[in-house]
Amino acid sequence: MPSSSTPTSTGASTATVTAMDVLDVRFPTSRDLDGSDAMNPEPDYSAAYVVLRTDDPDGHEGHALAFTTGRGNDVQANAIAALADRVVGTRVADLCDDLGGFSRRLVHDPQLRWLGPEKGVMHMAIGAVVNAAWDLASKRAGQPLWDFLASMSPEQLVAQVDFRYLTDALTPHEALEILRAAEPGRRERRARLLEQGYPAYTTTPGWLGYSDDKLVRLSKEAVADGFPMIKLKVGADVEEDVRRLELARGAVGEDVKIAVDANQRWDVGPAIDWMKRLEPFAPYWIEEPTSPDDVLGHAAIRRGVAPTKVVTGEHVANRVVFKQLLQAEAVDVVQIDAARVGGVNENIAILLLAAKFGVPVCPHAGGVGLCEMVQHLSMFDLVAVSGTTDDRMIEFVDHLHEHFVAPVEVRDGHYVAPTVPGGGAQMHARSLSDHLFPDGPVWRA
Amino acid sequence: MPSSSTPTSTGASTATVTAMDVLDVRFPTSRDLDGSDAMNPEPDYSAAYVVLRTDDPDGHEGHALAFTTGRGNDVQANAIAALADRVVGTRVADLCDDLGGFSRRLVHDPQLRWLGPEKGVMHMAIGAVVNAAWDLASKRAGQPLWDFLASMSPEQLVAQVDFRYLTDALTPHEALEILRAAEPGRRERRARLLEQGYPAYTTTPGWLGYSDDKLVRLSKEAVADGFPMIKLKVGADVEEDVRRLELARGAVGEDVKIAVDANQRWDVGPAIDWMKRLEPFAPYWIEEPTSPDDVLGHAAIRRGVAPTKVVTGEHVANRVVFKQLLQAEAVDVVQIDAARVGGVNENIAILLLAAKFGVPVCPHAGGVGLCEMVQHLSMFDLVAVSGTTDDRMIEFVDHLHEHFVAPVEVRDGHYVAPTVPGGGAQMHARSLSDHLFPDGPVWRA
Repeated sequence: MPSSSTPTSTGASTATVTAMDVLDVRFPTSRDLDGSDAMNPEPDYSAAYVVLRTDDPDGHEGHALAFTTGRGNDVQANAIAALADRVVGTRVADLCDDLGGFSRRLVHDPQLRWLGPEKGVMHMAIGAVVNAAWDLASKRAGQPLWDFLASMSPEQLVAQVDFRYLTDALTPHEALEILRAAEPGRRERRARLLEQGYPAYTTTPGWLGYSDDKLVRLSKEAVADGFPMIKLKVGADVEEDVRRLELARGAVGEDVKIAVDANQRWDVGPAIDWMKRLEPFAPYWIEEPTSPDDVLGHAAIRRGVAPTKVVTGEHVANRVVFKQLLQAEAVDVVQIDAARVGGVNENIAILLLAAKFGVPVCPHAGGVGLCEMVQHLSMFDLVAVSGTTDDRMIEFVDHLHEHFVAPVEVRDGHYVAPTVPGGGAQMHARSLSDHLFPDGPVWRA
Repeated sequence: MPSSSTPTSTGASTATVTAMDVLDVRFPTSRDLDGSDAMNPEPDYSAAYVVLRTDDPDGHEGHALAFTTGRGNDVQANAIAALADRVVGTRVADLCDDLGGFSRRLVHDPQLRWLGPEKGVMHMAIGAVVNAAWDLASKRAGQPLWDFLASMSPEQLVAQVDFRYLTDALTPHEALEILRAAEPGRRERRARLLEQGYPAYTTTPGWLGYSDDKLVRLSKEAVADGFPMIKLKVGADVEEDVRRLELARGAVGEDVKIAVDANQRWDVGPAIDWMKRLEPFAPYWIEEPTSPDDVLGHAAIRRGVAPTKVVTGEHVANRVVFKQLLQAEAVDVVQIDAARVGGVNENIAILLLAAKFGVPVCPHAGGVGLCEMVQHLSMFDLVAVSGTTDDRMIEFVDHLHEHFVAPVEVRDGHYVAPTVPGGGAQMHARSLSDHLFPDGPVWRA
């Protein structure tokens, strides 16, 4: 696959999207209990993977994926495939010049929106196709996605956003003001980002399936690697959680933050009670204490567990729910995810909402390619939206990066800003073919 | 297909579910603009249809469907098919004796729930399979679903409900108290229901694509047919809405209620402004003014448009969102839908929540088979939960009933209580084969 970073070639004006390939790719992560938590005991990290192919002589393709945990990845892939007629046959230049319009046409399709609206399998499918279009557009521009976004004018960025259902909290005019206010410092922050990277924290030590020894060893390694925070999965057994948190606190000392993550395990009352038991170990935040749909529940839990922060987002379906989490003062931190909502466009909306409410964004990552993808959104936010990394970190999990053409690089607790053009999701052709489900060699074995 | 209503035969103890058929069935309703509204201009009402087959000598099958508006019905059908291995091979008696457990196993599956959780395509797929199991169970019992449900003890009913994420608003103990309080009057209300039916209102006159003449004629017919309320679609053009509402008010007089339905067209501010223009015609309720996810938005609109009632539900993804709509006093009426949430079990939860908060339930219906299915839930509610029809009506749309084995019967503005065993979704074999997409004769033409 070509890695040319030259700008749009002269042939681009008539080039079209000729095909959309969809692949069901799964990694047998359940064999080692990587990724095990209170709600996801045996995940096989998987990608419903999409490739937009064109007849442009520049040879660029658009790659993206929806992340799932195994069973049902076929359903997700099938939903993506159902969108092929919306993109195949489109002129590449038209697609890349109006990604806002493209995104809105998919999201507002009256028949497809009946299947959500704007949530679940069909919305994630739209997100994958939209992200593939952004990957293609930024490759054509010869820029990594974060830089491609941060090169757009405030007006161009506002045009990417679907403000439907947002205007009681964020108007296009307010969005423009936020982006204009961040304009003067873009160049300086871009240079600093390229030099210093973006802060990261790590979840690698904290999976429920790991032994005590492994927890302690990986926690110490995380400190040695320069991470300012580690995260532990909790929620299966409170006595176990107390014990593991004590071990982790002993391993990392008082100066490194420890976040805990319940993966939606609790109701409101039990969340508060459980967190009281963990309070002696000063957890920095409790992540996903309850249903991601429960705005009022998160607000109640936040009042009940302060000063521990309450955070959620990896399963929040769309910008409308994020809007309410902010309006209800239900979260201290917003966790965006690159592959849950309707793609880059909706994540721009969510970054703008967070900036409007002054709430920091710490993305969810891990899975398959989520680190590679979401880093671009945080880096764009730093350069062109919030303008800061204060209280902000991107999650880092050290799994499956070897399958990516441009794997994330984390150095001294920071994501190194990627310079390879595109959105980060492109996998090696061999990784894709090896892990095809159910007929690839990894699964036939 | 057999219509025997004898109780479980002796062979049932070893009978198993032998197959699950899934059909993509579509009706070309867009040709006449039946069902056209501000967000759904050209729907082809469709069903992702499921049949559970067994080797039980009683010959019963479980039928149910997920309703869609055309494109994407294949995605919905594919998601249902992905659940086959959860039900095929199950003993029929085990399935029918523990529908609560069956429902929870599907909803809580960690890998499938990643695709929601509890929303969109995968949740509707679970709802369809769960409803098919209830259809089978009530046929085996020889009872229409409403009566099958209303014959269960309060304890049995509480066992159907997944209380996860509900206990801050409704505990199992409170649910039991609601059901026990309604027990004494069950027999009397059942008799009254069989005699008088359940109140209905009609949307037949009010589709956006209809001419003025058709609107006026159908509105007058609705009054003559005994309906206490009609409903008009609004939201495409405010001047048109004013004009059409004036025509409708002229046709029905002052004593018949007129509800209006925006199908999620507006943001919060525009919803309030638009409804001020319609206020002179005394709309009874505004339905779906904005995103079904926007609990706080509905609450703000309700404060802004009182005394006009605010209602929603046909696109509300699950019991957690309904819980919040009630907690936030965001709706005056709860609109359940038989085929949107996780099936009968989750709708029992929603009926109990509404009863706890003292808010009436007026189901969404229409589409394909939604009237046939949802009437059972309201009738069960009357007999065994809320115990009343005060301020309650089931929507009626006079489309596509001829395709059902037991079509709804509406007489003098009331649904006649069905006496045919099952949940109501079973279609004629010929209707299914004629409308198969894309190869049935209706679509080949």
